[in-house]
Amino acid sequence: MPFCFPADPTPATLGYTQNPLDRMSEQRVDDTWRDQLAWNDTARFIVLIGDKVVIDRRNATVLLEARVAGRLGVGPHVDSSTTKPGQEIFLGLAGAEPGPHLREHINGRAARFAGLSSFDAEAVPALGLDVIDLRSLVLTAAVPADEAGSTAQARALYNWHLSHPFCAKCGNPSQMSQGGYRRDCPACSAQHFPRTDPVVIMGIIDPAQNRVLLGRQARFIPGMYSCLAGFLEPGETIEDAVRRETWEEAGIRVGRVGYHSSQPWPFPASLMIGCIGEALTTEIVPDQAELEDCRWFSRAEAIQMLNGTHPDGLSSPKPLAIAHHLLKAFIEMT
Amino acid sequence: MPFCFPADPTPATLGYTQNPLDRMSEQRVDDTWRDQLAWNDTARFIVLIGDKVVIDRRNATVLLEARVAGRLGVGPHVDSSTTKPGQEIFLGLAGAEPGPHLREHINGRAARFAGLSSFDAEAVPALGLDVIDLRSLVLTAAVPADEAGSTAQARALYNWHLSHPFCAKCGNPSQMSQGGYRRDCPACSAQHFPRTDPVVIMGIIDPAQNRVLLGRQARFIPGMYSCLAGFLEPGETIEDAVRRETWEEAGIRVGRVGYHSSQPWPFPASLMIGCIGEALTTEIVPDQAELEDCRWFSRAEAIQMLNGTHPDGLSSPKPLAIAHHLLKAFIEMT
Repeated sequence: MPFCFPADPTPATLGYTQNPLDRMSEQRVDDTWRDQLAWNDTARFIVLIGDKVVIDRRNATVLLEARVAGRLGVGPHVDSSTTKPGQEIFLGLAGAEPGPHLREHINGRAARFAGLSSFDAEAVPALGLDVIDLRSLVLTAAVPADEAGSTAQARALYNWHLSHPFCAKCGNPSQMSQGGYRRDCPACSAQHFPRTDPVVIMGIIDPAQNRVLLGRQARFIPGMYSCLAGFLEPGETIEDAVRRETWEEAGIRVGRVGYHSSQPWPFPASLMIGCIGEALTTEIVPDQAELEDCRWFSRAEAIQMLNGTHPDGLSSPKPLAIAHHLLKAFIEMT
Repeated sequence: MPFCFPADPTPATLGYTQNPLDRMSEQRVDDTWRDQLAWNDTARFIVLIGDKVVIDRRNATVLLEARVAGRLGVGPHVDSSTTKPGQEIFLGLAGAEPGPHLREHINGRAARFAGLSSFDAEAVPALGLDVIDLRSLVLTAAVPADEAGSTAQARALYNWHLSHPFCAKCGNPSQMSQGGYRRDCPACSAQHFPRTDPVVIMGIIDPAQNRVLLGRQARFIPGMYSCLAGFLEPGETIEDAVRRETWEEAGIRVGRVGYHSSQPWPFPASLMIGCIGEALTTEIVPDQAELEDCRWFSRAEAIQMLNGTHPDGLSSPKPLAIAHHLLKAFIEMT
C-alpha cells in the first residue's frame, strides 16, 4: 500500500511547536562567533528565573534587548563586577527566510539567546517587567507562538543542565559547552548531550461503537479527562509503546496505531508523540495506582467536553496540549 | 481533513521491532516476584558479553536455560563462590496472548531476563555456544525476530547502565534498581531513568522530478548511500527536526513531512523515527564535514540499488535498517 501523508501539518495552536529558528548547529560551537552575535544590536535574550520566564507585557514579548537582559544578569552587558554572569545558550537565528546556505553569513538576522538569572523574581516589576510560567505563556497567548517555542527550547536545555551538573560516567563536575548543547567532563573527557524523553500519548478509539478512551489522574482539575500517556521504553517502537501503555493503564488491547503529531514538552524535557490507536477489546480494567477513573466517551460527549458544554461539567485539555488535538481527530474521523 | 492511518504497520523485516513481551512494569519492581520467576524452569536468560550476545546455534536461540546461563555467570544458578553474579534485567513475559488482566498472575508464561557476563568470549565455544554481534543476529536471521527484539531491549538498558554508573545530580555512585529500569542514588536520593534518544531519519523526495535524496558518509561501505538522519534537539517537533537536519546536511528546504515507522536502535540507545519529506528546493549544498557525497536518485536507480543491480555497483541499506523501508516507500509512491 502506498505511503500516505498525515491529513494535517502540526496544529498551529499546539503549544511550543512553532519554533522556526535556524539553529546553526555547526557554527554555534564557535565561541567567538557567538560572542560577536551577542554583542550585535539585533540580538535578543530570553531570561529564565526559576520555573518562569521574564516577560515585557507592554510589548507582549519575552525577547529582551541586551541592555535590559544585562540588568537581570544575562548577556554581554552584564556588569560582572556586581553580578555573576550566567552561561547563555544560543537558540538560533530568527527570520522566516534563512537566505543562501552560507553558514558563515547571518544576513542580518537577529540572534536569540537564553540565560538563567538568579535575579529575585519579586524585584522584576521594578524594572517594568514581569514573570510568567510557561503554561500561562501559551494559554493566555501572552507572546507570539514562535517566542513560546524558543522559550520551551531554552527551558528544556536548562532543565537538563541543572539536573546534570556531574558526569554520569565518572562522577566529577562537568561543564556546559558548545553554546549549551553539550556538557564536557574535564576529568574523563566524556561528552554528554541534552536528553529528550519520548512520551507516547494516544487517543484510543473503539471503531465499532464510535467511542474514545479517556482517563483522569487524581492531580487533574475536577471533571477533566485526557488521553492516556506514558514514557517509551528501551527496545520499543512508538506503536508498541502505545499498545503497552494502553494495556497497562486500561487493560485494553490495541491493534492498528497511527501517528498524529508531535510536540516538545519542556516539563522537564519530553517529546510528546501523539497517536491514534484502534481498540481490539472494550472491557476496561483501570490501573488504579495511575488513574482515578477511565471510561469510554461517545463522540457526542467528546464534542461537549471540547466545547465546554458537557451536562456534567466534564472537560478535556486545552489546545495547548496534544490530547486536545487527538480528541479533535477522533471527532473528525469518518 | 480526517486523520489517516499509515499505509503499513511496522515492516516485519525492520530490525529489533518485533518484541511482544508483556513487560509487567508495575510488577517488575518487586524483587521477590522477579526472584521467583527467575527460579522457575520456564525462565530464559539472554547473556551479553561486551558488544555481543551468546547464541545457541544448534537451537537457533539466544534464550538460555538458567542452568546454562549460570555457567556464564548470569541468573539464579550462578555459583557465587566462584563467579560474581551480574545484575539481571527483567525483560518481560513471553507468550502471544497475555491472558486476563491480572498483574499478579503469570499464566505459566515464560519470563525473560538478561544478564551481563564477564565471561571470556573466547571460552564460550567450549560450552557448545557462540557469540554474535547484534547486527549479524538480524542480518543472518540467526534467531527468531522476537528474540532479536528482546536482545535489543537488553542491550539498550545495559548500554545506559554502563555509561551512567554515577549520579549526574550529585556525582556519587548510583545503583541499578526496579529490575533494571531505574538507577537510584543512595547519597542524594535522585532517581534516574533509562535514556532513549530520538533520531529522525528521512526519505526526502522531489515530487516534481520523482527523485529521492540520499547521502553517503565516509565510514559507509563503498558504494552505499542512505537516508539523511540526525538527533532531535530540545524544543523541536519531529517534523521540524526533519526540516532542520535536511537543511543542515544538504541545504535543501523541506515542506510537508509524514511519519512512516519507528525502530529501537540499541547503538547505544536510540529511537529511529522514519519520515518522508517533500523537498521545496532542489539545489544540494552538502555539509562536507558530515557527508562525502549527497545526490538525487531517480526511482529507477533507487530500485536498482535496493535490488543490487545498479550498473555502478551503488547500494542501499538492508531491510534491517529503516532507510531501506523509506526507500521502498518512495518507490511505491504513486
